[in-house]
Amino acid sequence: MPEIKTLTVLGTGVLGSQIAYQAAFHGFAVTAYDIDDEALEKARARFAHLAGIYRAQKVAGAEEGQAEAALANLRLTADLGSAVANADLVIEAVPELLELKRDLYRKIAELAPAKTIFATNSSTLLPSDLKDFTGRPDRFLAIHYANNIWVQNIAEVMGTAATDPAVFDAVVGFARNSGLEPIEIKKEKAGYVLNSLLVPLLNAAAGLLLQGIASPETIDKTWRIATGAPSGPFQIYDVVGLGTAYNIAASSPDAGSQAFAKYLKDNYLDKGKLGVSTGEGFYTY
Amino acid sequence: MPEIKTLTVLGTGVLGSQIAYQAAFHGFAVTAYDIDDEALEKARARFAHLAGIYRAQKVAGAEEGQAEAALANLRLTADLGSAVANADLVIEAVPELLELKRDLYRKIAELAPAKTIFATNSSTLLPSDLKDFTGRPDRFLAIHYANNIWVQNIAEVMGTAATDPAVFDAVVGFARNSGLEPIEIKKEKAGYVLNSLLVPLLNAAAGLLLQGIASPETIDKTWRIATGAPSGPFQIYDVVGLGTAYNIAASSPDAGSQAFAKYLKDNYLDKGKLGVSTGEGFYTY
Repeated sequence: MPEIKTLTVLGTGVLGSQIAYQAAFHGFAVTAYDIDDEALEKARARFAHLAGIYRAQKVAGAEEGQAEAALANLRLTADLGSAVANADLVIEAVPELLELKRDLYRKIAELAPAKTIFATNSSTLLPSDLKDFTGRPDRFLAIHYANNIWVQNIAEVMGTAATDPAVFDAVVGFARNSGLEPIEIKKEKAGYVLNSLLVPLLNAAAGLLLQGIASPETIDKTWRIATGAPSGPFQIYDVVGLGTAYNIAASSPDAGSQAFAKYLKDNYLDKGKLGVSTGEGFYTY
Repeated sequence: MPEIKTLTVLGTGVLGSQIAYQAAFHGFAVTAYDIDDEALEKARARFAHLAGIYRAQKVAGAEEGQAEAALANLRLTADLGSAVANADLVIEAVPELLELKRDLYRKIAELAPAKTIFATNSSTLLPSDLKDFTGRPDRFLAIHYANNIWVQNIAEVMGTAATDPAVFDAVVGFARNSGLEPIEIKKEKAGYVLNSLLVPLLNAAAGLLLQGIASPETIDKTWRIATGAPSGPFQIYDVVGLGTAYNIAASSPDAGSQAFAKYLKDNYLDKGKLGVSTGEGFYTY
């Protein structure tokens, strides 16, 4: 089974920086790549912010200096060749644009050594959409993280039919060694497991609201009491972000989704209300 | 607003007995009706069992003698005329058979005084399917309870277009006074709020299993970690009961539902595995 000791994360946005920090926190030597110095400055600020969160939320180990040690395990670079030169695993977390991702895989297929495993964190694309551009379909798969991974600590691991089972197992082991619960997905599935479950629930809640059946507060209360869950669907929408919810709804041809996209735009997006991140969405924070 | 002090529950099955006991526990004078002495004997045993559960689970008030006082507030009868003669509210919780329910409403329309409010606990029928048989469409609506109402203490209240708003408010007040959180549903909707949310989630989980994407354990773990909920969809299936899940799936024309019905029958029902109630379902208890 391939051994994974060094990680490179391509893209240092919200998820990319969490992926890199989480692995560094658990002792991996991590290289974080982004396109220029400005992006790297932002990444540095994100990492410092994450160290504060891990300490404040008392993530196991954070109080024994691991939060700071993680920062020492992180190397930042805007040189793609140097970023991937020594990586056992490269996790790609760049924007969800097919051509952008394909171009990146074409480049690193040349730059990375043959041993390097590539993994995409894409939420909306399947690894099959990308595998032919990696130069190593047997060493390519998806590893999908949830936001706020220090709490929602799952990593969904999903290969294509071409992925070597030993590579799959190695990435499952990496997830476990970086403090995450690996979710082993046996076949390719759009939405992985989590979004395959969550999206139908959120759609159903949106339908109840648009049809005038009940208010977000009533719908959320019903869900919390009846299932014991800490949050109802509209609380989840506010965490996911109404901009993201809008993008997903607007991209679906379904009439109900289109109606919900318009509802979100008119009542929330156009008023700058994007959920928890802006302090107001379905609820005020 | 009509005042609700006396309650009659028609049908003393799992839900009917919980509805009656919960109201009696909160001080209402409750009449429980069932068709014959044998059914009433079973009801008496159910009520005694519920008293034990309320004490064991320390439902607020149970340790101050309310669990026993509830039993004193319960009157049992197999005489329908006597059962409804003095009721402010009648809650119907008989089996989910349209003709059975219609016949019952035709009878109590004659037997009950004009003041009596009728409410159905039907999960699968709409109150509109029944209102024309009540002799009082303005005093008729649905009140839908979740199983184990001492924990999942919601009551979904849903009228038809003909329901008097004052009657709706009175039933909401009754729900609150019987220790439940009223869920006010503004328009008729099959599945109310809870099942409108829960069924799409459960269907999605069934789809992932049948397509071979992931195991029940993996799917449940994903849901628990990512949403903080205490139970994943297959744990919920086991609580709902695989017989009920089978009935719902088998009655849907959808190909996925039909496949799931067959899967449940072959792997669970035919082996006597019905979930928590038989000690084994997707999990062993």
